Amino acid sequence: MSVTLEGNMLVTGSNRGIGLELVKQLAERTGAEAHIYASCREPEGTRAEALRELSTQHPGKITIIKLDTSDEDSICAAVRAVNEEIGAGGLNLLINNAAINKPARPAPLSATGKKDMMEVYETNVVGPFLLAKMFLPLLQRAAERFSPEDHEGDMMSCRRSAIINISTVISSVKKCPETFSMAPMYPYRTSKTALNMLTRCQAEDFRKHNILVTAIHPGWVCTDMGGEQAPLAAQDSVLGLLSVMSSLSNKDSGMFIDWQGNSIPW
Amino acid sequence: MSVTLEGNMLVTGSNRGIGLELVKQLAERTGAEAHIYASCREPEGTRAEALRELSTQHPGKITIIKLDTSDEDSICAAVRAVNEEIGAGGLNLLINNAAINKPARPAPLSATGKKDMMEVYETNVVGPFLLAKMFLPLLQRAAERFSPEDHEGDMMSCRRSAIINISTVISSVKKCPETFSMAPMYPYRTSKTALNMLTRCQAEDFRKHNILVTAIHPGWVCTDMGGEQAPLAAQDSVLGLLSVMSSLSNKDSGMFIDWQGNSIPW
Repeated sequence: MSVTLEGNMLVTGSNRGIGLELVKQLAERTGAEAHIYASCREPEGTRAEALRELSTQHPGKITIIKLDTSDEDSICAAVRAVNEEIGAGGLNLLINNAAINKPARPAPLSATGKKDMMEVYETNVVGPFLLAKMFLPLLQRAAERFSPEDHEGDMMSCRRSAIINISTVISSVKKCPETFSMAPMYPYRTSKTALNMLTRCQAEDFRKHNILVTAIHPGWVCTDMGGEQAPLAAQDSVLGLLSVMSSLSNKDSGMFIDWQGNSIPW
Repeated sequence: MSVTLEGNMLVTGSNRGIGLELVKQLAERTGAEAHIYASCREPEGTRAEALRELSTQHPGKITIIKLDTSDEDSICAAVRAVNEEIGAGGLNLLINNAAINKPARPAPLSATGKKDMMEVYETNVVGPFLLAKMFLPLLQRAAERFSPEDHEGDMMSCRRSAIINISTVISSVKKCPETFSMAPMYPYRTSKTALNMLTRCQAEDFRKHNILVTAIHPGWVCTDMGGEQAPLAAQDSVLGLLSVMSSLSNKDSGMFIDWQGNSIPW
């Protein structure tokens, strides 16, 4: 598996779990000119200690950005901050990784309310929707730098300009009968299924700009959200994710695949 | 095509369009013991005149219920009102038809905001989620009246106990590439795709109660929402919908079909 990503990248929800590991491996596996914007809700808080530590290990390569994807003003401020720093290269890769699950553990319908449904949608779908919309000028800037003479001039890729929406296999409507009983999670499921549709809409909408958009399932990963019984280490999941991202091209835009590159049915 | 529905039925968003036509044909095509609860946001308002007129044409057969599916208190009050009147039969059929589309006409991404995303999800997904949850006891009551000795004792049907979620073909993630350009509509699409997942979750969750749950696409219908250029009259769509509902059984629970009974890919 080879990771060949480069340029300016942004990862949301990067203070822990898959997001933190994404920033770590991106910092390690990319060249000197790559730059990683690592966003999280509270960069100064105790829950971002590992991210701050990681940042000091890679001087000048990681910029930590304050971003709460459920808060439109916060998104505006984060986009402004990135915009001021990023320069002519634009944004090559936006990884929408931040997500929440409420109620926190699989809960029956009786313990799931309107607030859970609304808040999970706000963070897991409307956040990525707004981020893509607001970062579109920077993603376009990155896409346009590939000239038509370039061998890759008409090719989309994660090196050129791309949005990766981190989804989950339990968003598959088709597979729901085999996954529902172990993870009912109405709010999370409906939100991630909506994220898949968002991905597909964005892929259609942004194809004219040569921006690739793909939804990827990271596997069932042993993190705060995935729980201790999860079979996959974040390290292995993320190596798979980055390898898959490195291989994406035109045919993969608007698709839903897993961390090993296998297609998942809608 | 034959319509063989009976018992107690509830239709949301019934003051106009497909909802109004559903109430009309249900009133005409069901027997004397059938009863229709027709809900809308403002039963006393000018926009419910046609529904009130229809109700007077079928004395004692239609109860108009005040219900705003975006308002949890309103849902609670509506469920209480139905509960007080419905008696031992329970609720046989819940048709979640009420839906909104914002911005009102197909709009590009740049004209679509967070408020659109949140409000459309609230009405189109969280409303049906809460209605199913709160009406579950009445749906169970209806399902339990079919005794095991009954020929249909283990069969699900819209005569016994069912939830029909009115979806749309443009919720199909698979078909998005062929439908996106004529109807971008991010908020509506993502909400209806989420509604399909909700349908599939409910089908799994409520199978143990013998409650059938199916998503149906009514066709592109000439209504206030569908627009004047739509090729299908509400009358024809609804006759198809009711015929299809009449034919549903165990194998159709958790499925997504159109008003002619054809399967639609997720």
